[in-house]
Amino acid sequence: MSDQAKDNATMIVFDGDLDKAIASFIIATGAAAMGKKVTMFFTFWGLNVLRKDEAINIQDKNFLEKMFEKMMPRGPKKLKLSKMNYGGAGSYLMKKMMKEHNVQTLPELIELAQDLDVKMVACTMTMDVMGLKEEELMDGIEYAGVASYLSEAEDANVNLFI
Amino acid sequence: MSDQAKDNATMIVFDGDLDKAIASFIIATGAAAMGKKVTMFFTFWGLNVLRKDEAINIQDKNFLEKMFEKMMPRGPKKLKLSKMNYGGAGSYLMKKMMKEHNVQTLPELIELAQDLDVKMVACTMTMDVMGLKEEELMDGIEYAGVASYLSEAEDANVNLFI
Amino acid sequence: MSDQAKDNATMIVFDGDLDKAIASFIIATGAAAMGKKVTMFFTFWGLNVLRKDEAINIQDKNFLEKMFEKMMPRGPKKLKLSKMNYGGAGSYLMKKMMKEHNVQTLPELIELAQDLDVKMVACTMTMDVMGLKEEELMDGIEYAGVASYLSEAEDANVNLFI
Repeated sequence: MSDQAKDNATMIVFDGDLDKAIASFIIATGAAAMGKKVTMFFTFWGLNVLRKDEAINIQDKNFLEKMFEKMMPRGPKKLKLSKMNYGGAGSYLMKKMMKEHNVQTLPELIELAQDLDVKMVACTMTMDVMGLKEEELMDGIEYAGVASYLSEAEDANVNLFI
Repeated sequence: MSDQAKDNATMIVFDGDLDKAIASFIIATGAAAMGKKVTMFFTFWGLNVLRKDEAINIQDKNFLEKMFEKMMPRGPKKLKLSKMNYGGAGSYLMKKMMKEHNVQTLPELIELAQDLDVKMVACTMTMDVMGLKEEELMDGIEYAGVASYLSEAEDANVNLFI
Repeated sequence: MSDQAKDNATMIVFDGDLDKAIASFIIATGAAAMGKKVTMFFTFWGLNVLRKDEAINIQDKNFLEKMFEKMMPRGPKKLKLSKMNYGGAGSYLMKKMMKEHNVQTLPELIELAQDLDVKMVACTMTMDVMGLKEEELMDGIEYAGVASYLSEAEDANVNLFI
């Protein structure tokens, strides 16, 4: 594989903050529009970006899993800013200012990424640890572990941890 | 472009914390000193690293933009640590300890980066969103969007998101 | 060096949070198991990952260095989550949930990394600044500066800042 051109892009979306999620999807859709093969690997708090808006009732969760489910932001509309969030005021204002400047919203960016065939992968190990089930995550994504990420990263030169 | 050697370095400076800004400029100046072409792309909170020390009076800002302008740290001397900041005590102590060990200050590192032809680019999209104007940012920098970053990253193998 | 295949992996471990440290070692051990040469460069708060569990009494520290030594988490067992830490409850629960799902603990992952010949390097410049001494850090690691990191990164395409 060492002779191959390394022209793809991968991103590990770890933090799952609103601003970092927006940045990662702007980079991903930009790279995909330039013809690159792009893989986003969502792990730890980044999994919250992929959660469905509505609460999904899963029976076989234990107490800790239920608690994590409740306390973590549910989906792209609930994410918080990494800085200056001020109990949600900051993320509200950021969204307002993005709208004023015709920047796409996070849900729109995610849809665009899927249209551009950006591969979105949920990390199965951290899903297990946090007790998140496939039914709770959005459609059209893939499920894999770190080996899958590393094999994609092998053919890429733009590999970011966000 | 796929046959080309990927030997350059790019950094997305996103967080704009004092410690992360110092780290990014130490890497940038080190790489430039080794003969690499280095591009730093400042976006979101990272734009604060590029702000001038003095307040610049811009007339045509709306209320939200004025508020963001006031609340975000103005330039490299006002940045805070990402951890253990304790209302500024931490960043004061970090600077003191860096001085004791003859580590360059952030303003000195920025100057060195400019002397070494590190390309510093402000992200125009997030400038728009946050209402930051060119007059508020330091001299000698460039202005561009994500496509420009991606085209630099294409020729680099060291691509960091900081 | 530009003709060489860039197939190695490097990681700058900057934040030193429990979750980010776990992620970095899972990536590092995964990449090493695939036969890649992996270098982890620990700097700033990331140095805390390498600290020994027990307090080491060093005589020639000044007041600030003693204070940083006391306030920063001592070693992998004391690290906190980057989010939802809640005074340690979050990291306790995360460890409990990892154990339930048979994910290796951070100390086990570090040991595995060393068995797989992952090169672990402590950044001497930030050690100096923070007043950390070699006696306080775990055995089997190397000591170097940013030039050493950059020279490793030159032969790698997976270069992450965590």
